[in-house]
Amino acid sequence: MRSLDRTWSAPPHGTGGVRRAGIVAGDSPRPRCRCAGLAAEIQRELVFAVPLPAEPAAPARVVVLVSGSGTNLQALLDAVAERGPGYGAAVVAVGADRGGIEGLRRAERAGLPTFVCRLKEHATREEWDRALADAVAEHRPDLVVSAGFMKIVGAGFLARFAGRVVNTHPALLPSFPGAHAVRDALDHGVRVTGCTVHFVDAGVDSGPIIAQRAVPVEDADDEAALHERIKDVERELLVEVVGRLARDGYSIEGRKVFIP
Amino acid sequence: MRSLDRTWSAPPHGTGGVRRAGIVAGDSPRPRCRCAGLAAEIQRELVFAVPLPAEPAAPARVVVLVSGSGTNLQALLDAVAERGPGYGAAVVAVGADRGGIEGLRRAERAGLPTFVCRLKEHATREEWDRALADAVAEHRPDLVVSAGFMKIVGAGFLARFAGRVVNTHPALLPSFPGAHAVRDALDHGVRVTGCTVHFVDAGVDSGPIIAQRAVPVEDADDEAALHERIKDVERELLVEVVGRLARDGYSIEGRKVFIP
Repeated sequence: MRSLDRTWSAPPHGTGGVRRAGIVAGDSPRPRCRCAGLAAEIQRELVFAVPLPAEPAAPARVVVLVSGSGTNLQALLDAVAERGPGYGAAVVAVGADRGGIEGLRRAERAGLPTFVCRLKEHATREEWDRALADAVAEHRPDLVVSAGFMKIVGAGFLARFAGRVVNTHPALLPSFPGAHAVRDALDHGVRVTGCTVHFVDAGVDSGPIIAQRAVPVEDADDEAALHERIKDVERELLVEVVGRLARDGYSIEGRKVFIP
Repeated sequence: MRSLDRTWSAPPHGTGGVRRAGIVAGDSPRPRCRCAGLAAEIQRELVFAVPLPAEPAAPARVVVLVSGSGTNLQALLDAVAERGPGYGAAVVAVGADRGGIEGLRRAERAGLPTFVCRLKEHATREEWDRALADAVAEHRPDLVVSAGFMKIVGAGFLARFAGRVVNTHPALLPSFPGAHAVRDALDHGVRVTGCTVHFVDAGVDSGPIIAQRAVPVEDADDEAALHERIKDVERELLVEVVGRLARDGYSIEGRKVFIP
């Protein structure tokens, strides 16, 4: 199937326009556990089935996945704390693939529920993927943000949260996908790199791009210095993007993401 | 051979520091017609053998290759006209792979010698490549600028002008090499693209990057509108880069270009 055949859209949160008591307007039941072959059947616009919030302007529910220090998580928590309901999104839970990390401690300090889903505690990667998806689903997310989460989620996870999993990447994709984006950019000798916030698809850092921002490479840059400058921009961009997706809604048509 | 093994350097023009009457300081004869296997033998710094200019501050000699309207050529001609010797470079000839184009007329209006080297008038691509290199060499260029030149020059040409052939590309390489960079970027849904000025190597838009500048993609962009904005930035960047290479000199170490 050509990717251009896929169209998703999500209404802005709090408008209540198309949402009715847990079921989307129309007759589509909430897609709870779709299989990886899902995409082939979606040739028309699909409106996300999000439970009606208790009050019309309730913020979008965001589950954040972390593997380390959680600085992107902190940026989201700060935005929620500083901007209040006007930000449009709230972090409702934080998950990790390992315990004892600062990302989880940040969540606990903010009074948020956390969960840990370790790969090695599951017989297969598919089982881990299903357990992770179950844990995320418990918190009924409108968006799942992979914020420095170092595991690649599987097809089952993606089908279940299709069009709702957001990732950040420290390069201007499609340049330098993968785990060593900053080093690869320096080795290639680029003079401009940056960061990308994108929806996750089955590939490695290959999903539809939501937003990007450029960061110039300085002559004196080593990997650490450049990565630090990219991270500064990345945090700001992630906060901006999550807020906009939540407040304004969005649609994904093939590779293009539209935010009204 | 790993590309990192290659090191080139060119002194700034007019300094006279390492240049002596047509032969570089030391014992290297001017490399007039090296074969494609040249790179393998260059493991150490090679200083360009550029004839000593008539006066110490004479501008770097630039041959520009065009295939169309020559707007990048015009930007260079304007820079030379406006900034005079302070710009550091002068266009000394303009070549094309076809006749009757505006790029050649711009050169003629500026009183510059022109030449046309048509692929179809040569028995093989290698012969064409050699004829083109001969025509360029007649003008003793310090730099050869491919400014919208739509042919890929061959290994023979590149060996002869190694480390001196500059190209512009309307994308942030390594993203979107090839002839449809702007369309490819739009189809991929990037939010930031831009332009790259780079040295030409044997690959397609894969040579060492000299400078890049970012151009944001607007929601309403089609290929023409985006390309127009990129071209504006590209012209400015090319003028800046050619001037800097000429005035300050440069070195190429593997994939990295250093301008003091």
